[in-house]
Amino acid sequence: MRRLMTPRFSPLEGGLFSSVSKADVGEGAGELIKAGVDVMAWADPFFPDPSIPASVQTVMAEAVASGLPSHYTMPIGSADLRGVIAGKLGTRNGITADPSRNILVTPGSDSGLLYAMMPFLEQGDEVLVPDPSYPSNFANCRLLGAVPVSVPLRAEDGYQLDPAALEAALTPRTKMVLISHPNNPTGTVFRRDTLEALARFVVAHDLILVCDQAFEDHVFDNIEMVSPATLPGMWERTVTVFSVSKGLGLSGFRVGYLVADDRIMDVLYGGAVNVLGATSTLSQIGAAAALKDETILPAYFDILDRRRRLAHAAFSAVPGVRMQMPESGILSWLDIRALGTATEVSAHILRTARVLVNEGEPYGAEGAGHLRIVHGCFMDETRAVDAYSRIAGALQLLSRDSQLLPA
Amino acid sequence: MRRLMTPRFSPLEGGLFSSVSKADVGEGAGELIKAGVDVMAWADPFFPDPSIPASVQTVMAEAVASGLPSHYTMPIGSADLRGVIAGKLGTRNGITADPSRNILVTPGSDSGLLYAMMPFLEQGDEVLVPDPSYPSNFANCRLLGAVPVSVPLRAEDGYQLDPAALEAALTPRTKMVLISHPNNPTGTVFRRDTLEALARFVVAHDLILVCDQAFEDHVFDNIEMVSPATLPGMWERTVTVFSVSKGLGLSGFRVGYLVADDRIMDVLYGGAVNVLGATSTLSQIGAAAALKDETILPAYFDILDRRRRLAHAAFSAVPGVRMQMPESGILSWLDIRALGTATEVSAHILRTARVLVNEGEPYGAEGAGHLRIVHGCFMDETRAVDAYSRIAGALQLLSRDSQLLPA
Ligand SMILES: Cc1ncc(COP(=O)(O)O)c(C=O)c1O
Ligand SMILES: Cc1ncc(COP(=O)(O)O)c(C=O)c1O
Repeated sequence: MRRLMTPRFSPLEGGLFSSVSKADVGEGAGELIKAGVDVMAWADPFFPDPSIPASVQTVMAEAVASGLPSHYTMPIGSADLRGVIAGKLGTRNGITADPSRNILVTPGSDSGLLYAMMPFLEQGDEVLVPDPSYPSNFANCRLLGAVPVSVPLRAEDGYQLDPAALEAALTPRTKMVLISHPNNPTGTVFRRDTLEALARFVVAHDLILVCDQAFEDHVFDNIEMVSPATLPGMWERTVTVFSVSKGLGLSGFRVGYLVADDRIMDVLYGGAVNVLGATSTLSQIGAAAALKDETILPAYFDILDRRRRLAHAAFSAVPGVRMQMPESGILSWLDIRALGTATEVSAHILRTARVLVNEGEPYGAEGAGHLRIVHGCFMDETRAVDAYSRIAGALQLLSRDSQLLPA
Repeated sequence: MRRLMTPRFSPLEGGLFSSVSKADVGEGAGELIKAGVDVMAWADPFFPDPSIPASVQTVMAEAVASGLPSHYTMPIGSADLRGVIAGKLGTRNGITADPSRNILVTPGSDSGLLYAMMPFLEQGDEVLVPDPSYPSNFANCRLLGAVPVSVPLRAEDGYQLDPAALEAALTPRTKMVLISHPNNPTGTVFRRDTLEALARFVVAHDLILVCDQAFEDHVFDNIEMVSPATLPGMWERTVTVFSVSKGLGLSGFRVGYLVADDRIMDVLYGGAVNVLGATSTLSQIGAAAALKDETILPAYFDILDRRRRLAHAAFSAVPGVRMQMPESGILSWLDIRALGTATEVSAHILRTARVLVNEGEPYGAEGAGHLRIVHGCFMDETRAVDAYSRIAGALQLLSRDSQLLPA
């Protein structure tokens, strides 16, 4: 039936016939877990350990006992959750949002991200996408008939977006800039001056910015986290994508939200039932409870701040591995070109350390020879550190083989 | 910013500036509920009463207490839920499905329905859509750049699909037939001979069938419920859409599933993360528990069978109202052309009976002068019947005014 499909979809494969390479989608990872492998390839904080905070458990248990979460909320999200989100946007993002006009709750930010792009993209439109970044940033463009245009991020620049690289990628077909901020996989937090230059570029060329802030919650070293929607001229041309998956560690709840100007949101509300449907009622209740509990983020911040240092210490000590200290979140991004291809090195880590990590290629052309490791796995620090050491040990073996280390 | 949007999206409105007409999306209905109005305009069984079965509550409470549903399942759905679904497809639908190759769990069937169509539809493709049917059936085509072509269902035919009407609507651009079966809003269960004719038509013209069986669970009067995917030549060209929202009364869980041949499913798995993201972990746990508990459907069947008779008795007794006995589910479909337009009559019901019902127009051109009433609201039969009487009373007033009743 592929013959009856559009050229945007017919090349897709879900890995029905290749369980390992598509471990993310199919049963591959499940089999590995059963075989005792640690999966550090899902951006799922604290996986696989229990991690619903007690305050959130209490509220959800009460909701289950009430028997009421069997019913739909409004497709745009429950009034309660939108109210809580509006408060959070004000205090944490500097965004003044009307909960009935500027906020759309989505069943996770994955579908939210695609939906944020959908109204704007026409066949052949070009989207500027920092490279490396979240694989969906490239794939979503293609699914919508648009063309992702890579804008390289360089290690030498600390992976900051280079305004000259944006200008160089611009064509008359450019319609949108799509960024993950902080960036996945590099963890980079784009600085105010970078974002101001980006904003001037977007306004000057009459573009749309889609800004995915799924990782905004844990930004270290007192780096300022600026929401581009707050910059001059940007509110009316930015759709910001948020999630409770990463910072609050509630990936399984599947709650995200889009924030935009009334005139964009009117359209997004108009298609919400069709494209997204409502979001799980119980998940919205849990998300609201988590957003209200002001102790969660600081507690996780401390854990994850320590983790990134431990991960960085373990991985960057290996000769041939280049890695910057993560500025945010739960991800380590390793340049392992001196040790082999990402496919070779990740296979070696799987075999030797029994840990599944991500190859860099899906994150863009710049991801070749890189690995992404979700160092924010496990609640238990001992177990996390043990996994880091096993990975480092495996890398060290390669290092030795490549004669980067004395034998 | 509408100027930067595609022509598919720029006309959409979410009712930011018209709270009543878009009660489904915005805050309108919430305001009405606060004002004491009964909402019988959402296809949400037993709304607003508690309706999570005890067995499901127990399993979910345990899951919450475990702290584990904070984590993602595989994007295609948890292995446990897919296993349970495969069993159900075998015993109830006569479909043999491999849980790792033919089943995709979706965050509700609304997004599942759009996704089932997405791989196939190209700009300008035509989709044959029975009229009246679920509003998304028309809207989804437009969002994907395709053209919905109405195939009228006639009251005289008991709203069965007329093979001649399908043939009459066929053009060289026809790519797909999209049906809701049982149909929303008419409740019609398409009969085996109707579906066999449809299958021959689909095969002969090399089309795709998307069949939305969200309402399959409660089919009355021993009418046979046939899944078209089981008919000759249809498995390889049918995507079937299912939901736990309607029959199991778990709309707020947001769990649906798509079932298709490996070759279609390989593509759907390939885009699953991007378009849908994973489904709520806790909702999947709850849905699996509900599918396993074989007492739920029979209990609801008895309640809803009685309800449709009570609703039919109340509404069809009003002079000027024409209504067939619902063959399935929770919906009454009233032809009220003798009493006024749907807008007038629904406004009158809202004012006089304090019940929100649906106007027929969004269900297609054939919906003009019709109302949809969700008679499957409320757990408590007394309260349901009271609402039916208030609606019937309001209709009777119009009847009298139209001199259809003696003064
Ligand atoms: C950058 C980024 N955005 C969005 C998502 C999707 O998150 P969710 O759908 O859980 O909200 C992810 C998940 O890995 C991500 O890495
Ligand atoms: C015919 C039909 N299909 C699908 C849906 C969507 O159901 P859900 O997204 O809750 O699974 C509905 C909801 O009203 C419906 O009426």
